[in-house]
Amino acid sequence: MNKKNFLRGRFEAEADALAKSFTQSVSHDRRLYLEDIAGSVAHARMLAAQGIITREEADLLVGGLERVRAEIEAGDFVWKEDLEDVHMNIESRLTELVGEAGKKLHTGRSRNDQVALDFRLFVSRRLGEWAVLTQELMRALTRQAEKGQEIFLPGYTHLQAAQPVSLAQHLLAYAWMFKRDVERMRDADKRTRVSPLGAAALAGTSHPLDPLRVARDLRLEAVFDNSMDAVSDRDFALEAMFCASLGMAHLSRLCEDIILWANPAFGFVRLPDAYSTSSSIMPQKKNPDVAELARGKTGQVYGALLGLLTTLKGLPMTYNRDLQEDKAAFFMVDDALSGSLRVMAGMAASLDFRAENMRLALAKGYVNATELADYLVSKGIPFRDAHGLTGAAVSLAEKRGVGLEDLPLDDLRAICPAIDEGLYPLLAPETAVRRRTTPGGTGPESVKAQLTRLKHWLA
Amino acid sequence: MNKKNFLRGRFEAEADALAKSFTQSVSHDRRLYLEDIAGSVAHARMLAAQGIITREEADLLVGGLERVRAEIEAGDFVWKEDLEDVHMNIESRLTELVGEAGKKLHTGRSRNDQVALDFRLFVSRRLGEWAVLTQELMRALTRQAEKGQEIFLPGYTHLQAAQPVSLAQHLLAYAWMFKRDVERMRDADKRTRVSPLGAAALAGTSHPLDPLRVARDLRLEAVFDNSMDAVSDRDFALEAMFCASLGMAHLSRLCEDIILWANPAFGFVRLPDAYSTSSSIMPQKKNPDVAELARGKTGQVYGALLGLLTTLKGLPMTYNRDLQEDKAAFFMVDDALSGSLRVMAGMAASLDFRAENMRLALAKGYVNATELADYLVSKGIPFRDAHGLTGAAVSLAEKRGVGLEDLPLDDLRAICPAIDEGLYPLLAPETAVRRRTTPGGTGPESVKAQLTRLKHWLA
Amino acid sequence: MNKKNFLRGRFEAEADALAKSFTQSVSHDRRLYLEDIAGSVAHARMLAAQGIITREEADLLVGGLERVRAEIEAGDFVWKEDLEDVHMNIESRLTELVGEAGKKLHTGRSRNDQVALDFRLFVSRRLGEWAVLTQELMRALTRQAEKGQEIFLPGYTHLQAAQPVSLAQHLLAYAWMFKRDVERMRDADKRTRVSPLGAAALAGTSHPLDPLRVARDLRLEAVFDNSMDAVSDRDFALEAMFCASLGMAHLSRLCEDIILWANPAFGFVRLPDAYSTSSSIMPQKKNPDVAELARGKTGQVYGALLGLLTTLKGLPMTYNRDLQEDKAAFFMVDDALSGSLRVMAGMAASLDFRAENMRLALAKGYVNATELADYLVSKGIPFRDAHGLTGAAVSLAEKRGVGLEDLPLDDLRAICPAIDEGLYPLLAPETAVRRRTTPGGTGPESVKAQLTRLKHWLA
Amino acid sequence: MNKKNFLRGRFEAEADALAKSFTQSVSHDRRLYLEDIAGSVAHARMLAAQGIITREEADLLVGGLERVRAEIEAGDFVWKEDLEDVHMNIESRLTELVGEAGKKLHTGRSRNDQVALDFRLFVSRRLGEWAVLTQELMRALTRQAEKGQEIFLPGYTHLQAAQPVSLAQHLLAYAWMFKRDVERMRDADKRTRVSPLGAAALAGTSHPLDPLRVARDLRLEAVFDNSMDAVSDRDFALEAMFCASLGMAHLSRLCEDIILWANPAFGFVRLPDAYSTSSSIMPQKKNPDVAELARGKTGQVYGALLGLLTTLKGLPMTYNRDLQEDKAAFFMVDDALSGSLRVMAGMAASLDFRAENMRLALAKGYVNATELADYLVSKGIPFRDAHGLTGAAVSLAEKRGVGLEDLPLDDLRAICPAIDEGLYPLLAPETAVRRRTTPGGTGPESVKAQLTRLKHWLA
Repeated sequence: MNKKNFLRGRFEAEADALAKSFTQSVSHDRRLYLEDIAGSVAHARMLAAQGIITREEADLLVGGLERVRAEIEAGDFVWKEDLEDVHMNIESRLTELVGEAGKKLHTGRSRNDQVALDFRLFVSRRLGEWAVLTQELMRALTRQAEKGQEIFLPGYTHLQAAQPVSLAQHLLAYAWMFKRDVERMRDADKRTRVSPLGAAALAGTSHPLDPLRVARDLRLEAVFDNSMDAVSDRDFALEAMFCASLGMAHLSRLCEDIILWANPAFGFVRLPDAYSTSSSIMPQKKNPDVAELARGKTGQVYGALLGLLTTLKGLPMTYNRDLQEDKAAFFMVDDALSGSLRVMAGMAASLDFRAENMRLALAKGYVNATELADYLVSKGIPFRDAHGLTGAAVSLAEKRGVGLEDLPLDDLRAICPAIDEGLYPLLAPETAVRRRTTPGGTGPESVKAQLTRLKHWLA
Repeated sequence: MNKKNFLRGRFEAEADALAKSFTQSVSHDRRLYLEDIAGSVAHARMLAAQGIITREEADLLVGGLERVRAEIEAGDFVWKEDLEDVHMNIESRLTELVGEAGKKLHTGRSRNDQVALDFRLFVSRRLGEWAVLTQELMRALTRQAEKGQEIFLPGYTHLQAAQPVSLAQHLLAYAWMFKRDVERMRDADKRTRVSPLGAAALAGTSHPLDPLRVARDLRLEAVFDNSMDAVSDRDFALEAMFCASLGMAHLSRLCEDIILWANPAFGFVRLPDAYSTSSSIMPQKKNPDVAELARGKTGQVYGALLGLLTTLKGLPMTYNRDLQEDKAAFFMVDDALSGSLRVMAGMAASLDFRAENMRLALAKGYVNATELADYLVSKGIPFRDAHGLTGAAVSLAEKRGVGLEDLPLDDLRAICPAIDEGLYPLLAPETAVRRRTTPGGTGPESVKAQLTRLKHWLA
Repeated sequence: MNKKNFLRGRFEAEADALAKSFTQSVSHDRRLYLEDIAGSVAHARMLAAQGIITREEADLLVGGLERVRAEIEAGDFVWKEDLEDVHMNIESRLTELVGEAGKKLHTGRSRNDQVALDFRLFVSRRLGEWAVLTQELMRALTRQAEKGQEIFLPGYTHLQAAQPVSLAQHLLAYAWMFKRDVERMRDADKRTRVSPLGAAALAGTSHPLDPLRVARDLRLEAVFDNSMDAVSDRDFALEAMFCASLGMAHLSRLCEDIILWANPAFGFVRLPDAYSTSSSIMPQKKNPDVAELARGKTGQVYGALLGLLTTLKGLPMTYNRDLQEDKAAFFMVDDALSGSLRVMAGMAASLDFRAENMRLALAKGYVNATELADYLVSKGIPFRDAHGLTGAAVSLAEKRGVGLEDLPLDDLRAICPAIDEGLYPLLAPETAVRRRTTPGGTGPESVKAQLTRLKHWLA
Repeated sequence: MNKKNFLRGRFEAEADALAKSFTQSVSHDRRLYLEDIAGSVAHARMLAAQGIITREEADLLVGGLERVRAEIEAGDFVWKEDLEDVHMNIESRLTELVGEAGKKLHTGRSRNDQVALDFRLFVSRRLGEWAVLTQELMRALTRQAEKGQEIFLPGYTHLQAAQPVSLAQHLLAYAWMFKRDVERMRDADKRTRVSPLGAAALAGTSHPLDPLRVARDLRLEAVFDNSMDAVSDRDFALEAMFCASLGMAHLSRLCEDIILWANPAFGFVRLPDAYSTSSSIMPQKKNPDVAELARGKTGQVYGALLGLLTTLKGLPMTYNRDLQEDKAAFFMVDDALSGSLRVMAGMAASLDFRAENMRLALAKGYVNATELADYLVSKGIPFRDAHGLTGAAVSLAEKRGVGLEDLPLDDLRAICPAIDEGLYPLLAPETAVRRRTTPGGTGPESVKAQLTRLKHWLA
């Protein structure tokens, strides 16, 4: 008896061809084959341990499943849309291989808990991989930061030069963002590694299953609490997709900085040829396509998250076929995030920073105005007054087209008599950076401490 | 000189393998091959007409392009990721086929205007197809409505029985929604059918092109106004995706009604076997999977729309590689909407409505309370007072567990002495429906008029 | 009998206080008061014309409604959460003012069609205002473009200098985007200006109403086709919100360009003081806050669109209370778009462009490479070969740190013997711009033609 | 010197009135006043402890800030749009109250780290409140579940009756969802309770601050790692908004079930009057408005999450004014989630379930088909064959219009000779529920164990 009979037994009419192709999922859910087989192996072993099938039947099933896996990996497996999904395709082939025993595999199980298990195993595996890839990117950034401790550039707020910072501090800001992503992925993984097997269709089963054994066998951390929740819960996928969305948000910001810095007006970075493309019409172009694409894919990932949230809105208990859309959404997110992390790690490692252009930019933006204000505070002037006086000095310098450091002492004293020669050394960007000694600031000790902590964490 | 040279001429390093696979788009944009060829044919003809290439060269190019199309359609074409996108794959094969002339095809053109043209042609074609499919669904609904003019059921607000309506009126509500979708698609198409060819990379070109000729040749309605806008505009795709989002919103509501009505508690519809599936564990199940999937795919379509909107946010002028994400998003929307419309048209045509269960539902819900209130108004009682008195009558009937029509006249007159025997005939659902004579209401003349207008519009 | 009685007549328990405050909408829907009164005036006049109420009653009602409006506008009206929404607040006060007649106003009407009417009138009014504001911004851009016809800057693709363009062409690209927005708003308005009054709760009514008269009185273009659709349709609000989303997308791109250009590395624009802010700590800062905020609000508008789309997903027929969320979403969009358009029009009008910095940027980016390639094509070299030869010339110039125009003829001829002295004049950016003579290109005639068309359209 | 001078010192022109009103945030960020004051108190104490200001100045500042708080809470504080935001409003009033010392409060601090601190404190407080409210709802559900252990209804998949479950199991499914929400909120809170104070504008500061002391004083768990990240990070707000989105998704599903169950076709629940509303036209209506509104608000919350994600996309380092949109989005989410949780807890506690209608529904749907299949498996028939035989039995019963339990033994034996009298007791719904003995299933021991665990966790 083939699968078509399983699912249509009572029906008199065949499924409409369009409806069949509309409802099949095997064209994408075959990506879960490893997890489907692992879950079935664990289920078969548990059935035998509980005396529901014999040990011989279990061995047959496990052997058959291994053979199916081998066939799939060798490219010999024929996927059939008629068999709807990855589960039925594998079970049907298994039954061809092992005969009667194959028909017992599904005892005490439903596709509802089976697919939830497969999907959880898959999401957990990808969360692990995402964390690894994110750490690769962090490593690349950290290495670049190490080399950039004595390179200074304007730190921007509102994309206006604000205060000088070290390149290391700028790059490490991203490393810390990505560290949070990894931690978030780990929290999400805790909630993903819960086995739903044993929930059956929605109510549990009267077969004497041992869900805990299956969970342990698959190295999962816990077993479902409530069967109805177990088959309709997709929180784990959404949480993973949210982690990916934040990861993409962070990547999009890094990409934006790289794209800006690669523009000749900034010239802060020379893109590696291996990560650039040219133009079909303008041969001089060196385009940051990789960074643009990663930035662009952010929308795709957000969209997939919102799409699945929308799909879940207002669904009554328990499993509804709407949920089938979960996997396509997750795969899209997985491809976008994994691809972007991988390629950005490679690119970050080979960026060639241009310290001289950063120095030129520092000269333009009055980034030492805060130094003057802080100097006035150190002379006992209340901060809000110091701020006003500094504004006056900037205005004067701007009118003359010079830097603050170029204003003669007399002119500065006309603005505030408390100023003396001791001010000038403080106006150099290097000094400004060095004096930012608070923990987490751009000062060299803080940067070194950040590097030590990050390298330790990454090790 | 092959394409790799075109695009990397000045670069010393090869593209990184990951970067190459990350940036290629041919794995999905090959779906534009028809449009790419049509656009190139029109471009070649125009180049010849303008004397930029010879007529012989143009003939060579057109012949070669036809051959490429034939190869693709025969499955003989070898798509190469190395050649990045559909454009370079086709041009490269063309040059193999026709030699030197192939290298002239791209004169005065950039991939920026080329892809914008291809994509506009594709979106326009799909908008047309969506309109056709939507009309098919409208036809199915209209036919069912014709048969449902004398079938009555409770109309719901808040999913509570409100007033009796005819099945025809209920189904036609959907037909009118879908009509708006078609009209919206047509408006979107106007703005899609604008040729960007001639914008070149972003600035226009010094070759004496004739953009209008290309547009006419491709039966487009207009030519771009501004070259910088032309290469970076994706409004047309977003507008089409918005049309699709509203289409899916409407489908999701229709699906919800079908799913509810197929539940035995309602029992208003018997699902056709051909559009139902059963369960891997519960052989009694007859699941409305098709309707659930279409409802679920709504999230996917919304997500794609929002994804592309997000991708566009804050992009500086003009073309940025982020835009490459537009096509994957549109294809996803196209698959979801086309598939859902097609299968729902088939399903709608074969729904088997159960008038007797609708009648039973009418008996339960005091759906004739408005009739009593309106009757009191006709006796000169202000509407707000009539509403209160009717509430009292409903309370009384509810306490006795009967319908309003079952309350004896004396009891009703105790509530309001203006009531007489003439009330009772008005309380029958059929009467209530028939008396809703305002245009657009559920009364039979209104329904007939709606059917006439819709059939006329569909013809 | 006050409104609490209207709505709770049959219930024994009072509404829970939390539930009352959760379900009330008057705290925001009072914004519809003008439309609610206009709709009631039209309804009252129609009721009299149809003989459902007397002319005297209608006069009383119209007079009372005018008085309510005056009270609201004078700030004398006491809005009560207890009366739930704008409709009940106004009707209740009206009844206080005019007595018994007030209770007749709601004859043949339900809050379902009433709120749909109010909301349509409001959305239509706002669409009109958005179009006016968008045109204001177009005017400001057009005026700046007029002054920028002889100012040249690099046109960017991938934020890399591509080819020289005029400032006029760059600014006009935005004007054309915004023109599409206005056209889209007008299309949306057609579908908004349809009167739902007469649909009553969901089924039409047995009172002999004249919906067409109401529509004409309110200058609406059409009357609803189907009562069930009429009370549950929110397409018009979604379509308006989509128009706003595209408008914000366009604004966000303009803002991005302004923010980039205001950065000292570019220095293409000096922000007007009146549209800039400084910093609480860095007195030298001149921040483009207005542009940043408008760019940031884009997310808010997209979110509101998605939110309402999500709310509509899977709602069964007909009106469901979920729809109440429509107005808060629309108001948020309205505030964000109107505010952004208004302030950006002011800012655009007072931007001070820096031609000299644009010229400096032109010198850096090999933006004349396309000129060389096109020159080679004019010498009979196939485009694809010309592209490769130009790449070689760019490489040579880059190695020497000079522009293409600085390479001696001998060196160029070594790359391609077809080159002669005639090349050099073509390499000047002004020449490049001037030679882009295709319609819609950056050449001066095209720009003039664009200006003429836009000014004509705006007039 | 007032605040206008602070921020515009160097500028010659006044801010444009529209621009001022567009950029001000005090109309909504005043909601942070408590956190702003708490942060300033901690900052002032730290400044004194570090010797940057005197202890007397610190006491003056703390006293002044307490007075400002008292004024705000008494409604005596005059909020001024001119002073832009909550920070400047409070500081300006403080300086009026305490004189010179007020101007020293901002030493070593920027609005960039100040607002980040305020917002983190606020989000953390709300996360705590959300968790409390979610637990209230869990308590209401758990109490209802306790009473529903012996009430049975059809468990649904695809909204088709699948297998019998207890009402307790159904309600507990929701309780477990909400427990995950609380756990997720706690994980999010860990990452929220990190102090950014000391990051100053973006680079840290040269004043000898002690960020750890501030953090400890405010009972935060950690201090920022990197100043540039600290001022531009909004992950914590997004993560909280994602928690809220999942919370709303779960609420929307619960609401959907309540709305369905309140429909007379189901009749599984009688809505409490206190949580229902009636109709302005149909006095018989009892509408589940509260549940509909909570379901509808789900869209609003999703939209706000997407909106802020979009706002962050592609922002360059570090603080950009776009981020100001974060608070309005969060407040909207907070209102929607808190309001919905609170009102749904009240409603859930007072739902009146109708066991008799659930029993009637059980009789209709062949929900005992799985029992027959499992029985056949227990007789040694492979599951897949048992499934097919059960399908045949269902078909037979359906044709006769009876339940499986009504088929005579002979007819069943004709389908499968292994069936005997022992089958019949298994077909009763109570038996089916009782036999679902696996952990997490609907069987009574599992339900009791779930109740115990939940009550323990809630205690």
